[in-house]
Amino acid sequence: MRGFARYTKLGDALKLVLSRVKPLSSEIVSFDQALGRVLSEDVISKTNVPPFNRSAVDGYAVRATDTFEASETKPKKLRVVGFAKIGVATKSCVRKGEAIKLMTGTPMPRGADAVVMVEHTKIEKKRIAVLVPLTLGKNVSAQGEDVRAGEVVLRRGQQLRPQDIGMLSSISHLKVLVFRRPKVAIIVTGSELRSPGTRLKPGQITDINRYSLSAGVKSCGGIANPFDITPDKPQAMRRTLQKALKNDVVLISGGSSVGEHDIAPDMVAELGELLFHGVALRPGGPTAFGVVRGKPVFCLAGFPVASLVAFDMLVRPAIWVMQGLPPDWGCLRVRAKLTRKVASSLGRADVVRVRVWSEADELLAEPIRITGSGILSSMTRADGFILVPGDMEGFGKGTVVEVELY
Amino acid sequence: MRGFARYTKLGDALKLVLSRVKPLSSEIVSFDQALGRVLSEDVISKTNVPPFNRSAVDGYAVRATDTFEASETKPKKLRVVGFAKIGVATKSCVRKGEAIKLMTGTPMPRGADAVVMVEHTKIEKKRIAVLVPLTLGKNVSAQGEDVRAGEVVLRRGQQLRPQDIGMLSSISHLKVLVFRRPKVAIIVTGSELRSPGTRLKPGQITDINRYSLSAGVKSCGGIANPFDITPDKPQAMRRTLQKALKNDVVLISGGSSVGEHDIAPDMVAELGELLFHGVALRPGGPTAFGVVRGKPVFCLAGFPVASLVAFDMLVRPAIWVMQGLPPDWGCLRVRAKLTRKVASSLGRADVVRVRVWSEADELLAEPIRITGSGILSSMTRADGFILVPGDMEGFGKGTVVEVELY
Repeated sequence: MRGFARYTKLGDALKLVLSRVKPLSSEIVSFDQALGRVLSEDVISKTNVPPFNRSAVDGYAVRATDTFEASETKPKKLRVVGFAKIGVATKSCVRKGEAIKLMTGTPMPRGADAVVMVEHTKIEKKRIAVLVPLTLGKNVSAQGEDVRAGEVVLRRGQQLRPQDIGMLSSISHLKVLVFRRPKVAIIVTGSELRSPGTRLKPGQITDINRYSLSAGVKSCGGIANPFDITPDKPQAMRRTLQKALKNDVVLISGGSSVGEHDIAPDMVAELGELLFHGVALRPGGPTAFGVVRGKPVFCLAGFPVASLVAFDMLVRPAIWVMQGLPPDWGCLRVRAKLTRKVASSLGRADVVRVRVWSEADELLAEPIRITGSGILSSMTRADGFILVPGDMEGFGKGTVVEVELY
Repeated sequence: MRGFARYTKLGDALKLVLSRVKPLSSEIVSFDQALGRVLSEDVISKTNVPPFNRSAVDGYAVRATDTFEASETKPKKLRVVGFAKIGVATKSCVRKGEAIKLMTGTPMPRGADAVVMVEHTKIEKKRIAVLVPLTLGKNVSAQGEDVRAGEVVLRRGQQLRPQDIGMLSSISHLKVLVFRRPKVAIIVTGSELRSPGTRLKPGQITDINRYSLSAGVKSCGGIANPFDITPDKPQAMRRTLQKALKNDVVLISGGSSVGEHDIAPDMVAELGELLFHGVALRPGGPTAFGVVRGKPVFCLAGFPVASLVAFDMLVRPAIWVMQGLPPDWGCLRVRAKLTRKVASSLGRADVVRVRVWSEADELLAEPIRITGSGILSSMTRADGFILVPGDMEGFGKGTVVEVELY
């Protein structure tokens, strides 16, 4: 029952974590279920898109040379010899002095090499007057103009967005190889914890971390696998940890400090390798990390703010990396001016929760007054946080700081 | 088969859309399934958090007056009379000159009003030497310090984050009232369209929009309900539209221009009210919007880029609003310097796709060279876009512009 003998610097702790995690194996998913997933293959198109030359506008397929020097005052007259239907290969052919009417997307008839937009014509019975000159290929989408067969269209490591899903459809790449989403076991320990909705006896409190950590895992693409509340007894915890190791990552919440009940880090050391215990971070100091049977295991504080802050700083980056993304993926930072000074201890990184709002074209950040790792409302009231690095004693009022948004 | 007689300005089109959509009705979800959902109620706590005064550290519960003037050189000696267990109400009492050992989170024993951290004591058999003076309440988390009973902890209109889910657990607010997620029908029309993976006959092309629009809907919290490809014949489309109106929003992709097959806007006018047809936007000009039986109906271009751009500009804001969020929710903008000039026509808003990267501490944006509403790779290669407003002719090389990230 003593303080930490040594605190690992936040940056060093993150490096140790990242040295032990890598992208997971791949799995095949249907392209229409792949939004937000990360490619573990380069996607190469087998086909040309468009598959044929086609009109990019509603108008008339013509020979460009027939329109040279056409103008409003001296239009070129062409005979309309047919109507090319969309979805059907055109059999007819455009000869000198002729035009074929067509719609956007219709295959180009043979002989034609440009399309005059309907807006740039006047209809005169079976003829059209072309009012503008066309260059070769004008208003034609050429075969392979979008994608050429053999081309890499999407790259390994890309997170798939709506347009990328559209592209996969476009080239009929129906089965996509993506990184697996990490399955994250969440073990909350503590004999005083009860599930929400339970009537509490004196001294008992409602469990928070099972739910906040599960939501944290989901919010960065992981699959949360929460376990029932585990008593903080070595045997019970060892049994739960063994089961939890079927997942890709294990989070143990509670018992991560240096008190008599803080058995989680010792258990990691006993069953595997403990890489650090105690981080120069506030809140979130009582955090440990190790590897058991090849699986990263994080011991997080029982206090809800401390556990979520350590999650944001150390676990979230690992979950992104395991999906094939950079560790700072999805971090959204804005610059804002502090409305009050922020004090911090040298040698320790401080995560200061702030409210952010805009006033007279300026972003302002106000540190939340009541803090402490037990005060979850300091996070629910916050729009983001600033990280005061270990080598700084804080920021003065009016300093423009980087705020990472929640 | 003529151009649009009139184009509605993009800003006016968005105003018309937003004038016709509002937050949907509410539904009850379990708090642990509510991540990312938007509250349609103010959440008021029925309980105090913490529910009792508790120790914020590992240490000894004491009477603060017993520690006055304690120092390293002149420590105050106190008799340890017990060990308060976590999760159990303490029966023992701290009297003058006494201390009770306890762990972080343990209820404060009667009589005690401060906790000395274990690091600030020396153990001497059954006594401790207290090395620092304590103020009243030091290292004690007071009952209701985090949340007071009766307090509003989360507000209507908030999107729930991991810490908010934790808060709901903390106060045992198990059933949460949230706005329904909009069900969005997606009708793709076009006789030339085939599902991906189908062997194409000449003139046929693979459907993209069913998938890109479904992904777009999902990416902003909607529930995509795609229909089978519908022939662009009035009867078939009317039948499909009738079915689709069971959803909260209808998207019709294809047949939104002014050609002979462009029957979607007329159908909206016939069955309900058409609010605009043709937007001064490129790509995405052939876009229409109306209301049929109280449901917003968007007619989008068949070209995949045009349909996705119009989706981003006009549909996505509507989907956010229907969930109780602001129309520009989730828009992520950065400032970047153009590597090339961007030309645009006066009177029309241009959406110019750009690649964005960082070079020598500066963000650069390079417009994608090949554009056109059929060239989906112009979007898959892009990291975001710049919107050139209708009253500008473009931006010069080197201009710092706002890029909206995909």
